[in-house]
Amino acid sequence: MSTDYRNLKILMQEIKDDNRIQRIIDQQDKVHVVEHFWNKDHYNRDGQLKRLSFLEEKMGKKFNVLNDNDSIQELEQLKGNIENFIGFSKVPTGIAGPLLVNGTEASGQFYCPLATTEGALVASYNRGCKASSLAGGIRSICITESVQRSPIFRFESIVQLGQFLAWIVHQYEKFEAITGKCSRYAKLINMKTNIEGNQVNLIFEYTTGDASGQNMVTFCTSEICKYIIEQSPVKPVRWYIESNLSGDKKSNYQSFQNVRGKKVIAEIDLSREVIENVLRSTPELMADYWRTSTMSVIQLGSIGAQGHIANGLTALFIATGQDVACVSEVTVAVNRMEVSSSGGLYASLTMPNLIVGTIGGGTSLPSQRECLEMMDCYGEGKAKKFAEICCALALAGELSICAAIASGHFVSAHQRLGR
Amino acid sequence: MSTDYRNLKILMQEIKDDNRIQRIIDQQDKVHVVEHFWNKDHYNRDGQLKRLSFLEEKMGKKFNVLNDNDSIQELEQLKGNIENFIGFSKVPTGIAGPLLVNGTEASGQFYCPLATTEGALVASYNRGCKASSLAGGIRSICITESVQRSPIFRFESIVQLGQFLAWIVHQYEKFEAITGKCSRYAKLINMKTNIEGNQVNLIFEYTTGDASGQNMVTFCTSEICKYIIEQSPVKPVRWYIESNLSGDKKSNYQSFQNVRGKKVIAEIDLSREVIENVLRSTPELMADYWRTSTMSVIQLGSIGAQGHIANGLTALFIATGQDVACVSEVTVAVNRMEVSSSGGLYASLTMPNLIVGTIGGGTSLPSQRECLEMMDCYGEGKAKKFAEICCALALAGELSICAAIASGHFVSAHQRLGR
Amino acid sequence: MSTDYRNLKILMQEIKDDNRIQRIIDQQDKVHVVEHFWNKDHYNRDGQLKRLSFLEEKMGKKFNVLNDNDSIQELEQLKGNIENFIGFSKVPTGIAGPLLVNGTEASGQFYCPLATTEGALVASYNRGCKASSLAGGIRSICITESVQRSPIFRFESIVQLGQFLAWIVHQYEKFEAITGKCSRYAKLINMKTNIEGNQVNLIFEYTTGDASGQNMVTFCTSEICKYIIEQSPVKPVRWYIESNLSGDKKSNYQSFQNVRGKKVIAEIDLSREVIENVLRSTPELMADYWRTSTMSVIQLGSIGAQGHIANGLTALFIATGQDVACVSEVTVAVNRMEVSSSGGLYASLTMPNLIVGTIGGGTSLPSQRECLEMMDCYGEGKAKKFAEICCALALAGELSICAAIASGHFVSAHQRLGR
Amino acid sequence: MSTDYRNLKILMQEIKDDNRIQRIIDQQDKVHVVEHFWNKDHYNRDGQLKRLSFLEEKMGKKFNVLNDNDSIQELEQLKGNIENFIGFSKVPTGIAGPLLVNGTEASGQFYCPLATTEGALVASYNRGCKASSLAGGIRSICITESVQRSPIFRFESIVQLGQFLAWIVHQYEKFEAITGKCSRYAKLINMKTNIEGNQVNLIFEYTTGDASGQNMVTFCTSEICKYIIEQSPVKPVRWYIESNLSGDKKSNYQSFQNVRGKKVIAEIDLSREVIENVLRSTPELMADYWRTSTMSVIQLGSIGAQGHIANGLTALFIATGQDVACVSEVTVAVNRMEVSSSGGLYASLTMPNLIVGTIGGGTSLPSQRECLEMMDCYGEGKAKKFAEICCALALAGELSICAAIASGHFVSAHQRLGR
Repeated sequence: MSTDYRNLKILMQEIKDDNRIQRIIDQQDKVHVVEHFWNKDHYNRDGQLKRLSFLEEKMGKKFNVLNDNDSIQELEQLKGNIENFIGFSKVPTGIAGPLLVNGTEASGQFYCPLATTEGALVASYNRGCKASSLAGGIRSICITESVQRSPIFRFESIVQLGQFLAWIVHQYEKFEAITGKCSRYAKLINMKTNIEGNQVNLIFEYTTGDASGQNMVTFCTSEICKYIIEQSPVKPVRWYIESNLSGDKKSNYQSFQNVRGKKVIAEIDLSREVIENVLRSTPELMADYWRTSTMSVIQLGSIGAQGHIANGLTALFIATGQDVACVSEVTVAVNRMEVSSSGGLYASLTMPNLIVGTIGGGTSLPSQRECLEMMDCYGEGKAKKFAEICCALALAGELSICAAIASGHFVSAHQRLGR
Repeated sequence: MSTDYRNLKILMQEIKDDNRIQRIIDQQDKVHVVEHFWNKDHYNRDGQLKRLSFLEEKMGKKFNVLNDNDSIQELEQLKGNIENFIGFSKVPTGIAGPLLVNGTEASGQFYCPLATTEGALVASYNRGCKASSLAGGIRSICITESVQRSPIFRFESIVQLGQFLAWIVHQYEKFEAITGKCSRYAKLINMKTNIEGNQVNLIFEYTTGDASGQNMVTFCTSEICKYIIEQSPVKPVRWYIESNLSGDKKSNYQSFQNVRGKKVIAEIDLSREVIENVLRSTPELMADYWRTSTMSVIQLGSIGAQGHIANGLTALFIATGQDVACVSEVTVAVNRMEVSSSGGLYASLTMPNLIVGTIGGGTSLPSQRECLEMMDCYGEGKAKKFAEICCALALAGELSICAAIASGHFVSAHQRLGR
Repeated sequence: MSTDYRNLKILMQEIKDDNRIQRIIDQQDKVHVVEHFWNKDHYNRDGQLKRLSFLEEKMGKKFNVLNDNDSIQELEQLKGNIENFIGFSKVPTGIAGPLLVNGTEASGQFYCPLATTEGALVASYNRGCKASSLAGGIRSICITESVQRSPIFRFESIVQLGQFLAWIVHQYEKFEAITGKCSRYAKLINMKTNIEGNQVNLIFEYTTGDASGQNMVTFCTSEICKYIIEQSPVKPVRWYIESNLSGDKKSNYQSFQNVRGKKVIAEIDLSREVIENVLRSTPELMADYWRTSTMSVIQLGSIGAQGHIANGLTALFIATGQDVACVSEVTVAVNRMEVSSSGGLYASLTMPNLIVGTIGGGTSLPSQRECLEMMDCYGEGKAKKFAEICCALALAGELSICAAIASGHFVSAHQRLGR
Repeated sequence: MSTDYRNLKILMQEIKDDNRIQRIIDQQDKVHVVEHFWNKDHYNRDGQLKRLSFLEEKMGKKFNVLNDNDSIQELEQLKGNIENFIGFSKVPTGIAGPLLVNGTEASGQFYCPLATTEGALVASYNRGCKASSLAGGIRSICITESVQRSPIFRFESIVQLGQFLAWIVHQYEKFEAITGKCSRYAKLINMKTNIEGNQVNLIFEYTTGDASGQNMVTFCTSEICKYIIEQSPVKPVRWYIESNLSGDKKSNYQSFQNVRGKKVIAEIDLSREVIENVLRSTPELMADYWRTSTMSVIQLGSIGAQGHIANGLTALFIATGQDVACVSEVTVAVNRMEVSSSGGLYASLTMPNLIVGTIGGGTSLPSQRECLEMMDCYGEGKAKKFAEICCALALAGELSICAAIASGHFVSAHQRLGR
């Protein structure tokens, strides 16, 4: 039985046990009253305070740091996040939402904080959220997860490499045990090999709890490597803790049939009415543009096919203390749009490489924590929920830009709101 | 004569006129005393203020917003940068440097502000800067630039498409004139075609002054398209302002033999002494790791080959008000390291897709402007200079991580400084 | 003015001068009686001889070598094609057609010889040809051409590289002259540069008459390089005649926005009737399968998007003495299918990397020449014609396999005809 | 336990049981007298007959069909290989060798028949073989194998898709049983899933005995799909037998961390003497060119990194009745060269996507069978052996071209032997 198949079996058992699919179906059938949330005072104190009050009341939390009334005094909390500290970069943050999400962990209407300096970005995502919510919401499901480290070991020749492999195939349980000792959160779930000439990449796959987990898997893999070097009957000529096969900070083609971080799928059925009224386009035009754009993306030689998910995800990552450099890899995704049998639009976004966390990294810093709390996504047990919101938001943004370009109001929006 | 060749001719004439190569040679031969700048008080007020004072004195500017003593009161200045504003995300910012750069525009020692929440990142880049500076600095040269928009026009068949092309080949001067009217900064420098079946992408290439320029080229292309639709003797069945062939927010393989944003090349010769003393590695180990890593990156299916340039560039982009979502495309680059004939290490980084600006976007916002001013990179006439610093910093970061992994102190650094 | 734009202008002038578009329109409007050509005696002498007689009569040539009645006695003619000769590999060859093509050079009904050992291949392409011909034929247009060689020159540093470039920008006319002396057929049409660190790839682009031209451009580039090495005021540390940036024998992403060999575009409008009667499918099913398949190809990480053009092109290349190893690169292509406004199917195939010739290479060997003559594609002045047939045939094959998979008779065809 | 890990465990057990590594070590230590085999009569009857006699005597077989003395009379044997048969394409075939291979199945000196019309190709591969054999031979090991089919199933939404998956995870044993009934050779070894929006690719992985197996896995997958459609409690809206995710006839990035066909690794240590005497180059120059070429290939956007393996493999595939169109995918490979610690050159070639067979397809046709017999690779039990020879030959060709370009005799060889 393969890992994939075994993981799928586990997932399916879980889904059965907690009745997850039925909950999504039930949610889908509920009538949702989409909250009204928008005012035209984009850039003044009055508009800002109205929005903050609304969110503070809704969430039962104060968002004082975002408000910028007080400076951050306790710098000791920055330990582990920065060196040579000189101050804070202050990134304007707006809100897009409500976004109605129907996921396995994320369920309800969410307001997404977006830290950006690009005019029209928040407005565009907000429009996508509105259309999505009025259409009954986005189904968004985190289906699998893992984070990799890939040390590499080189030998005199493939003969010694073979002897090494003959030993290592009996060590997996040992590696699981080492991982267990090294971290409370990390769990080794798989080991793969990639042999190239006289060297082998070992690819260790871990789950990392609710942290994005890149440091965690480094430390565990380091302990495993120490054991390998000490115990292996045949010693490598050279070895390195990371071969650059893990995909860390590098968009790559391996993401699709594997997973890095979380694999999340979001989809929606939009009625013709919502498309015409909110997105000011038609299902036919949007599907036509999707096909046209996909053909161009293929000739461009981009990995995956999507429009501008980098925009929304970068802004959400900055606001919520994620590892923003991962934007280089999370933007590997495929978007699909087609006219549905009922004459509306079916749209989906598949993201196999979503690296996010709700603990660790920058998540507990002052403004970042507030932004996570705004979506009830701070702390343990929230990472999958947050991932489902990320993917739903990205899909909402795809809908908005697709409609804007398909129907010719992309330029005017940027003229009105951009710099 | 081809554009490439013509551009090269223009560049070579410029270089001759301003004696640029000689200036670089002269710089190279000067003995530089690398400034001493570092203290261990990473996370407390005392260390922060020492660093800020040093920088304020050096640059003759105050950095009060970064300091976080005052809140930002005038929200009207956010117009064009944000909608639905709720406050500021505050991103911890550290300093890496001095970084000695010997470029055509950037020349001297620079301190690079990095906004991040990832522990060890600033320390690692700082180490790379130190080694680079002690080795005599990084040569960094911006060799060409352009930003694209690519509308697409579809016809009944390739026959009508042919008739359209027969008309459009005589319109280039008209398009130049339209661009001139539409923008003070944008200049149309080329038009390419990409025919696929019955549709054609027109690829308009512009220079955009010192702005990153994506909005500017949208507006100009929109005006050109209006003219095309009105005047063309054969009308397209469908057309879109952007086909997704421009590469906007999408890493892609077209960057290498073209350029998107700026193409910058940085290189350095490191002596064995500097590598041993500062990077605690050897030229042979670093070159060996470079080769090993490159082989893995090829099998991963990443575009280009580099280690973690996303880390430094993302942090620099957040601090300086760049379009951070462009991290999805700027990380297309190739890094090379080899043992040099003198027994040291030659290292280079080639970035064909560096989208940056020193005016427009978020560059004039309070903390962002301070961060640009820290490097004397704010405002007109500074974009190429900033691009050369970006590429040099990225190369410094590659040196540091390569040495860390090659010599086995990657893990310990993250254990000491990370979360 | 850019090369692209300039080439387009030249092309458009040519098209105007020779009234090419009008000829295609006229052809398109003619009613074609599709020849009837098929018999069920696939594998016996009787069927073979009927087919050969038909072709011999049609073309006014004898195809004795294919017939295999005589052995090849004059081995001296193999000079330049083989070393260590031991005999002939005999590859079974079938015929697909007639294929009605409406191109700038290829115009009429063609019979395509396919050398293969894969059962069902000829039958499938034959079905695609039949459907295409009954639908009024495939428009197939060769729009541009060039073959590259890319030597690389490395210098001490980017400073010396700059000095080299300052010299080389004034040498283009000299390089044209060298090319003129070196070859009767090759013509230098462009020189591009690709700078990476301290080294530069020069990319010389040539037209090569009716030969595929890889050897020809090697020899010319070699002469140019000799001149460079002798005359350049600054000498490279190292240089190589081919850097592997030319794309020779390697599928790659640079093909799309450039060209390697010939860029050819084929398209067709199929009526619903032809699809139902000949392809036993519907426009909707075929467009649905096209979209589904394209999404999978994107996730696979293939270059371009097509189904199985390798099958038909490999078989045609073996039969006609092409450089069959180029199958590794010619299969970079994009196929598009969509339901047309008239309720039929629009399908196109864009091939930017079609390396073919009708002189040189294996084209004049006994059976290979016969196969080219069967399509009136042997010798000078025939390369573009042959390229247009290649692309049209490949599109016919895409139609056939797409219908077969879309409508569920892919498996039964292989069970009936395969091994 | 993952498939990879499980497969590795099985492999390692096999290796232990049959003492395979020890055999390779023993072989390696033997002194081999490399056969002398070459004469200058490339293109005349005399040279041809000398070579054929040598091979006939060595193998104890007659090679009459290659000899071309008789025509092929029994056309019934072509059933399953061709339709609309018109005759035989006759491809000149030369011999490269002896090539000393030290593999798990291939062990000894082999003569490789190459069918090509490209002058200098056989000579170049022959030179690589000579150098490799004099250096003690190429270690070549087939480490894993599988062939895929990937049907796709689309549902109303991801909810129904979830219900489908919940059912299918319990069907694997059933699918194994169906496969067992459908084919004597095919064995289902894994099932993977790839979910994209509301559709799922099932990826069935099979071993296919000694056949290349693409038809075999089609038929088995068809039977499995019939069962799925009949038995699944939730019916797909649409499904297709092949989604184009299998990689059939399409080079792609998934090959590296998976396998398609056979994954084979070849490596060699060449002494400085052999490099100087036979390849007329040096280890340093060759390693330098390898690095330079690899950097260019990365910028080109090719999949993998190699020089011209398409040349040798295409010629070998035509001669031996392989599915030549697979050249589009088998050329995905990575080549590595480095100066070894003993001052020679270490070179390896890793091929994860080698589709070959020694039964079925064109293997039993007259000349094709003779060519397989020439290497004792015809029939059952020979596929891994043949795969190891293929990879070793490809590596020999890489050595030859690398030396030729590195040392500047690439051009002269083509001038002497090419057309």
